[in-house]
Amino acid sequence: MRIARFSIDGNVAFGAVEGPVSSGGTPPGTQPDDQLSINIIKGIPFAEFELSGTKVPLSKVRLLPPVLPSKVVAFGRNYAEHAAELGNEVPDAPFAFFKPSTSVIGTGDPVPYPTFSAELHHEAELAVVIGRMCREVPRERVAEVILGYTCANDLTARDVQRTEKQWARAKGFDASCPLGPWVETDMDLETAADLAITCTVNGELRQAGRTSEMTHKIEDLIVNITEAMTLLPGDVILTGTPAGVGPLNVGDEVAVSIEGIGTLTNKVIKRG
Amino acid sequence: MRIARFSIDGNVAFGAVEGPVSSGGTPPGTQPDDQLSINIIKGIPFAEFELSGTKVPLSKVRLLPPVLPSKVVAFGRNYAEHAAELGNEVPDAPFAFFKPSTSVIGTGDPVPYPTFSAELHHEAELAVVIGRMCREVPRERVAEVILGYTCANDLTARDVQRTEKQWARAKGFDASCPLGPWVETDMDLETAADLAITCTVNGELRQAGRTSEMTHKIEDLIVNITEAMTLLPGDVILTGTPAGVGPLNVGDEVAVSIEGIGTLTNKVIKRG
Repeated sequence: MRIARFSIDGNVAFGAVEGPVSSGGTPPGTQPDDQLSINIIKGIPFAEFELSGTKVPLSKVRLLPPVLPSKVVAFGRNYAEHAAELGNEVPDAPFAFFKPSTSVIGTGDPVPYPTFSAELHHEAELAVVIGRMCREVPRERVAEVILGYTCANDLTARDVQRTEKQWARAKGFDASCPLGPWVETDMDLETAADLAITCTVNGELRQAGRTSEMTHKIEDLIVNITEAMTLLPGDVILTGTPAGVGPLNVGDEVAVSIEGIGTLTNKVIKRG
Repeated sequence: MRIARFSIDGNVAFGAVEGPVSSGGTPPGTQPDDQLSINIIKGIPFAEFELSGTKVPLSKVRLLPPVLPSKVVAFGRNYAEHAAELGNEVPDAPFAFFKPSTSVIGTGDPVPYPTFSAELHHEAELAVVIGRMCREVPRERVAEVILGYTCANDLTARDVQRTEKQWARAKGFDASCPLGPWVETDMDLETAADLAITCTVNGELRQAGRTSEMTHKIEDLIVNITEAMTLLPGDVILTGTPAGVGPLNVGDEVAVSIEGIGTLTNKVIKRG
């Protein structure tokens, strides 16, 4: 099931997106969104819920970030080729940083170019959405704590990242964490471990990889972080970006597509 | 006013703590808490509120973290002597990292020793509590966005901090951010800029400094972070720790005292 969060006529709800599944890698604007509708969910997707049967065309709603994470835990340098392109070594063990709740936006939301940076970069990533409160998750039980998967763009002020030892500003600024378009819940860990992931800027391909290139697998990332801290329903794990990161400019439309999930599209604007 | 958040008979409320003000530097256990009472607040301290006049003795309530921050923004190496003791340079510009909401506990709450570390350290810090949503705060308007001040212990898994490039696990583990005992709101920036701050372990003095030793002042920290991101009411800024950090062991009682604010006390326990 593809679970979206959306607003219509000022009301916010979750819903199941129904209609053809994108093959992924779809250039922005060409997704057959007009064939999709949303079956409104009674309740919330973190507990038992029912589909109401009331359906609205996707084109009539505004998609919101599919979840409201209390925290986003992002792993760095988890694709060897990307680590190399920035002149970094691949770490032996995973390492994580946070993006705060104030950094999260949805598909279609604008990204104001940060005023404290002159080098905004895209980073397409597979995002894992946590379904239940958990801590010290054993490797073999990781699947139980996952609600599903969505697309993320780990937007980065690359110049600031080079000069500030910790990345709160470089990777935590407002609108630095686009998530969406929805959460695909009908996907197992094996499938998630080998998906095509792309990033385009104004329709031009910039990043193309497969989640199978991750150095540390989804299971290892969740074991690693829950060894230290509790994850809450709706928390999000970012799993690293493949090679091909690069600059974004005001006016650019950046799109992250993941096979079997969909496309997350955002436009960079001048901060007003 | 000293604003506490507390529970009594299963109900949670904010209240104004009334009675003698601690001089700071008070060893744990010797605070005259039995002379204090709480005047229950009608409403929340982030908007207009009234004191109800209903008072309960402080000894009858359980103090909770005085706020529930959406994020804690902590600044590193902001006291030159502390940077030096760990063999680090003082950075020219401030740099920040996050501690997540799941890391926050109150005074009197236990700190389970993290299982992924063998070197838990205390770091006594002045915490600034944000009173209103803000972004791009000009230096001269910083006072307007501050609700008040409290004590913090920026607990750190020092061994993990040395090996992991970003500090999500080393400084973001569960219970790594004791805050309290309450928020002192009757304090201006000038006063906050020169307070005695101490840390004791089992009554023995480990850290003793003054907030006047900060390299980057509170105003600069808030300008720096709000250049990049929105702060929400209840968000907390940690301002760095003076020299004298050191290990904590299971069974230790660690207390952070700040002049004019009070004492934050926590006991380290074995994780059950």
